[in-house]
Amino acid sequence: MISFLEALSLVEEKIKAINYPRHPQRLYQPIAYLLAMKGKKIRPVLTLLACNLYQTEISDAIPVALAWEIFHNFTLMHDDVMDKADVRRGQATVHKKWNENTAILSGDSMLILAYRYIAQSPAGHLKELLDLFSLTASEICEGQEYDMQFEERLDVSEEEYMHMIRLKTAVLLGACLKSGAMVGGAGKEDQNRLYEFGIHLGIAFQIQDDLLDVYGDPVLFGKKTGGDIVCNKKTYLLVNALNTKNENERKKLLWWLTINDRPEEKIEAVTALYNTLCLREKAQQTMEKSYQKAMQALELVEIADDKKLILKNLAEELLNRKL
Amino acid sequence: MISFLEALSLVEEKIKAINYPRHPQRLYQPIAYLLAMKGKKIRPVLTLLACNLYQTEISDAIPVALAWEIFHNFTLMHDDVMDKADVRRGQATVHKKWNENTAILSGDSMLILAYRYIAQSPAGHLKELLDLFSLTASEICEGQEYDMQFEERLDVSEEEYMHMIRLKTAVLLGACLKSGAMVGGAGKEDQNRLYEFGIHLGIAFQIQDDLLDVYGDPVLFGKKTGGDIVCNKKTYLLVNALNTKNENERKKLLWWLTINDRPEEKIEAVTALYNTLCLREKAQQTMEKSYQKAMQALELVEIADDKKLILKNLAEELLNRKL
Repeated sequence: MISFLEALSLVEEKIKAINYPRHPQRLYQPIAYLLAMKGKKIRPVLTLLACNLYQTEISDAIPVALAWEIFHNFTLMHDDVMDKADVRRGQATVHKKWNENTAILSGDSMLILAYRYIAQSPAGHLKELLDLFSLTASEICEGQEYDMQFEERLDVSEEEYMHMIRLKTAVLLGACLKSGAMVGGAGKEDQNRLYEFGIHLGIAFQIQDDLLDVYGDPVLFGKKTGGDIVCNKKTYLLVNALNTKNENERKKLLWWLTINDRPEEKIEAVTALYNTLCLREKAQQTMEKSYQKAMQALELVEIADDKKLILKNLAEELLNRKL
Repeated sequence: MISFLEALSLVEEKIKAINYPRHPQRLYQPIAYLLAMKGKKIRPVLTLLACNLYQTEISDAIPVALAWEIFHNFTLMHDDVMDKADVRRGQATVHKKWNENTAILSGDSMLILAYRYIAQSPAGHLKELLDLFSLTASEICEGQEYDMQFEERLDVSEEEYMHMIRLKTAVLLGACLKSGAMVGGAGKEDQNRLYEFGIHLGIAFQIQDDLLDVYGDPVLFGKKTGGDIVCNKKTYLLVNALNTKNENERKKLLWWLTINDRPEEKIEAVTALYNTLCLREKAQQTMEKSYQKAMQALELVEIADDKKLILKNLAEELLNRKL
């Protein structure tokens, strides 16, 4: 069995070795810039680990693993334009370092590059990998669209929010695992169980991200807390707070949403409001439920228990980070 | 043999029948909006006609034909954002009718949709179609990148310009033909000859487009002439005018490039300058050379002469439009 760190260093090595066309530089440099940023690279690692559950030789899964990482970074490049985000992983975003047109066009090239990696997968799996890739990619665009629409709404239900993060974040983790299992030769049922494992892991992961923005340790979290509160980002916490039946708290919250010149006070007040409504606990319960569903899906996968351990450990590590 | 008009109405029927997901509407409506605009739909038609040169049954080529049309419209959606163009085929562009974020994200979904059509192609041709599609798509992004870079330069050579339009416009026509021939069962050599035919046709077509903007009949051309001159667009004419050894004319031209509040006068002056430098004739000669190269490539294709007639007629119709 390959370890998490071995899979990670294999991915990093392969990403470094990507051979971009020399010209035009302004099209390809931003791609290399974004892919060279430090990141968890959890997605391609999941693909390699899932493949390794079924076969020792994982080289067949490398192209699709890279395709996911490139695709994921493509979504970051375009999302940062749409969200007008200036910083990503502590560095300037592509549209800040270059300009918006470059971010749009390099992003397009990056999506095409991801498909070029898919095309390098073993012929016997090409069609099903391609279908999974395109379906997942479409769903992620749908998720981003809902996320943007939610910014203009105050009546997003918890159900709508859960649907959005499923599309925007969770299906990718599911598809990374499924594609690895596919290439590794897993049966359809195991492929789908690993997909479910990834979905629930992804949902728990996203809610944790929402929690960390408010309750995380800024040192461990790697960025200042409260960013989501300052910009009224529709997180699990805010969506639920807006749906409270406590009219008094809701009124206070709506007022704070109109304030954008007193960030520190706003963070303090909205956090206090979340505390009053016990939303930290609610979020943790929802995370825990998703985590349990992920474990149940993994339980059903028809491989030896010791092989499941690497995914179990990974899930625990991802979900007990810095709270 | 299927006629041009039969191929066109088949394409139009299939585009109308595309079944978009119902939600989120704001992601899929702009795609349907753009695809419903009147257009020549020359690209998918070329694919179907090329397939039909080798086999009577062209249904196998329909998915890749649609993929090209969807891809082409994806490039229009994103290019219009990058070029800040407000009108396309007489209607508001997507980013004007909705907004830029919608145009970026719907465009991304459109590119993915094009790949979903590629994936529906016959299994035996999937890998090579996918490779051709991705290579062509990458090249077109490179062409757009060069086109944008040229906007900031005054020293673009004719050679650089020709390379840019080859990437931005011509490879797509070549690839449309090649993919159709591929699915129709043509040998590699014929596939490449049809690709060459498309390349040279595309180059001639683009130079004609540059000419029509200055010398076209506004009624037949469907838009006001001089648009390229007003916005200093680096066309075949402007690139060559900037490279003139006639220092006097060059100085006049550079001065006019700084003027943007007297459009009518500017159009008249720059057109006169083009006339002085005999650039209309030069462009027509270059077009003619490309046309001849296209015909030579077609000549070598190993099919009966009467079958070539439909492509010959199409080329003539495209290149004797409204001058």
